[in-house]
Amino acid sequence: LLYLTYLLDMTTSIYAEIIAIGDEVLFGQTLNTNAHFISNELQKIGVKVTRHTVIGDKQEEILYALSEAEERSDLILITGGLGPTKDDITKKTLCIFFDSDLIINEDVLNHLTGFMQKRGRELTETNRQQAMVPEKCQVLFNVIGTAPGMWFKYHKKVIISMPGVPREMQYLMDNEVIPKLKSQFKMPFIYHKIIRTYGAGESTLSDTIESWELGLPENIKLAYLPTYGEVKLRLTATGQDLEVIKQQVDAEVQKVVPMIQPHIFGYDDEELVEVVGKLLVEQGKTISTAESCTGGFIAHLITQAAGSSRYYQGGIVSYSNEIKTEQLGVNPETLMQYGAVSEETIKEMAENVRLRYKTDIGVASSGVAGPDGGSPEKPVGTVWIAFADGKETYTRKLSLFPDRLMNIQFASYSVMDMVRRKLQGWL
Amino acid sequence: LLYLTYLLDMTTSIYAEIIAIGDEVLFGQTLNTNAHFISNELQKIGVKVTRHTVIGDKQEEILYALSEAEERSDLILITGGLGPTKDDITKKTLCIFFDSDLIINEDVLNHLTGFMQKRGRELTETNRQQAMVPEKCQVLFNVIGTAPGMWFKYHKKVIISMPGVPREMQYLMDNEVIPKLKSQFKMPFIYHKIIRTYGAGESTLSDTIESWELGLPENIKLAYLPTYGEVKLRLTATGQDLEVIKQQVDAEVQKVVPMIQPHIFGYDDEELVEVVGKLLVEQGKTISTAESCTGGFIAHLITQAAGSSRYYQGGIVSYSNEIKTEQLGVNPETLMQYGAVSEETIKEMAENVRLRYKTDIGVASSGVAGPDGGSPEKPVGTVWIAFADGKETYTRKLSLFPDRLMNIQFASYSVMDMVRRKLQGWL
Repeated sequence: LLYLTYLLDMTTSIYAEIIAIGDEVLFGQTLNTNAHFISNELQKIGVKVTRHTVIGDKQEEILYALSEAEERSDLILITGGLGPTKDDITKKTLCIFFDSDLIINEDVLNHLTGFMQKRGRELTETNRQQAMVPEKCQVLFNVIGTAPGMWFKYHKKVIISMPGVPREMQYLMDNEVIPKLKSQFKMPFIYHKIIRTYGAGESTLSDTIESWELGLPENIKLAYLPTYGEVKLRLTATGQDLEVIKQQVDAEVQKVVPMIQPHIFGYDDEELVEVVGKLLVEQGKTISTAESCTGGFIAHLITQAAGSSRYYQGGIVSYSNEIKTEQLGVNPETLMQYGAVSEETIKEMAENVRLRYKTDIGVASSGVAGPDGGSPEKPVGTVWIAFADGKETYTRKLSLFPDRLMNIQFASYSVMDMVRRKLQGWL
Repeated sequence: LLYLTYLLDMTTSIYAEIIAIGDEVLFGQTLNTNAHFISNELQKIGVKVTRHTVIGDKQEEILYALSEAEERSDLILITGGLGPTKDDITKKTLCIFFDSDLIINEDVLNHLTGFMQKRGRELTETNRQQAMVPEKCQVLFNVIGTAPGMWFKYHKKVIISMPGVPREMQYLMDNEVIPKLKSQFKMPFIYHKIIRTYGAGESTLSDTIESWELGLPENIKLAYLPTYGEVKLRLTATGQDLEVIKQQVDAEVQKVVPMIQPHIFGYDDEELVEVVGKLLVEQGKTISTAESCTGGFIAHLITQAAGSSRYYQGGIVSYSNEIKTEQLGVNPETLMQYGAVSEETIKEMAENVRLRYKTDIGVASSGVAGPDGGSPEKPVGTVWIAFADGKETYTRKLSLFPDRLMNIQFASYSVMDMVRRKLQGWL
């Protein structure tokens, strides 16, 4: 039941195309994640993306793609081809297209000088080239990198050029492009609400909320977006009055939430790790981790959240059995009798790290991440996880995948969700 | 269309374009992994992919994209728009484009009947529609799904239509498209070599190897591909004789390697974490980790590599000062006098974890990941890293970014690179 969020065709629609410049995408070495990210961001503000194009780093191709796109669309976003090296001809091509000259931008030059100084490096001639921009553009300041973004107005259309490094492009989209677009174009209202769930599959959720889904108003679309045990339910409403569609969506959310409450960890941009962090702060609790197969990834998830030092004391990655016994105090008998991947071991791991690290909560993981180490009784993907708070110890056995990295990530998120469910009273 | 001067490099090259039909890609819900896969496969047999295009599921858009592509390229591969619900548009559009009629293909109909029977289902009218194909096409038999692939010859060009379900498309590429292309086109060879470096910026590398780069033969192209402290140097050679271009590339690699040797950690698909793992195995050394600001991410990088239990014993995430003193034995005086983010503390962390976890090598990190916790002397992005092997302890201060996750990842990779440099004798 995957419904695509078709936007309404309104006379006020803004049509956009994304052009990625990069041989590495055409050679099949890199996925075009930039077009994916940009589409998503534009979609949120009601801009209709009608085409993605990937072309090579050649002047004729860039000029050709640009003039084609300019005939069709109101807005063109270009990524890539702006690095400091010689193979980049994008800026020169933009000068030809816009009939403009390359000039030094002093602000960009100052930024670059400081950027290099901070890294103990000299400004090279190549760096200096990066401060050159077409005279007719407005610079989009790239605080975290060296290649500036550029904003051009052309025959009532807007053409934007951004670096291809994903984090730099993302920074510019979030901080420059989206706010500027919002202020310059009048767009139909689109309102999104995302309900974020963990631990229930797409089909389970879909079966549970089927009657509600069938009764949704025409102008509200539902999409299921699954990743790693998480399923996002995204409601998208379109209309002429923002307040009206907000109220509509909120009413629908109030109807569906009670049907799937224990699986819901948050809304919109709330991440599971942040929700867990917030719960720990609110309840004044501290946590520690004891990891085997997840190899530090649970600790990484916890410490990804800013301010996690308020509740996270630390943890241990007890990869070998010696570390499990010597540093974590797991009983060697337990390991001998049941093995490292067992309910008995995982219980001791969670309970012991809690005591040794003097925290309110201890969590633990032990499993067969793969690709080797599986057996008929404990195949690759078998993972035990546990939660201990001094009163009770909860354990759970997961049967996951043949893929090592997926097992590590999935098991770690499952531990986070176990903490969330316990702190919210669902466990 | 002013810039239709498309320049062919070689008269014998086969130029291909990939057109993906799919609103889910334009909406930013799905990554265009199909174009990625197809590019990779074509590249291996020497077909030059010059463009990816993504368009919506509309007749005019498909016709437009197809006729544009047909003017430029020898080979067009289309994916998507063949599911049982969208069936009509793409196939009808292909009929219009090729001036052909839809007819029932009996072989496909038989396959579909069997396909449904095996799943205990009846052949529906929708299924029957899937057995309809344009009269002028050759069917590419889709054994694992219901939508057949189609192969058209048109003005000496080849146009291929495949379903958008990745595994069905992949099946058709491997079993039908690639073998058929090989038998029908004579293609030039393409050879890639990637030199993977860590720790030197793109512009530093570019300045260092400038003279070599300028002297590269016409048929060898160089690209810089930077991510997180890593820079890939990709050499791509084209020619009529595979052995000749391989030798050419190898000769160029031999020339450039000595110029940047200490920064090179590997070639082609080799990852830094795997190279470090291999070095540890070869030198029979074990390693342990003591992490503060990286919060488990160094451990995660190490344990991402399959078989890492051979050299990784475990580690500690000493997030709080109490854990640093109690579990890792850092001198409280050191913490008091110099603070957690200091050369003195990081030295003790690396040395102590090595002793406590009884490993040959101990590594450590401590820094201000941000967004809070910075000060004028130790701003956000200040990270100390260390390596201890019982003989010497190396420390390094990094001045990184305003972004928390970037600091965590960058610092962790820098620790891995420090281990690599020491084990390879560059430190």
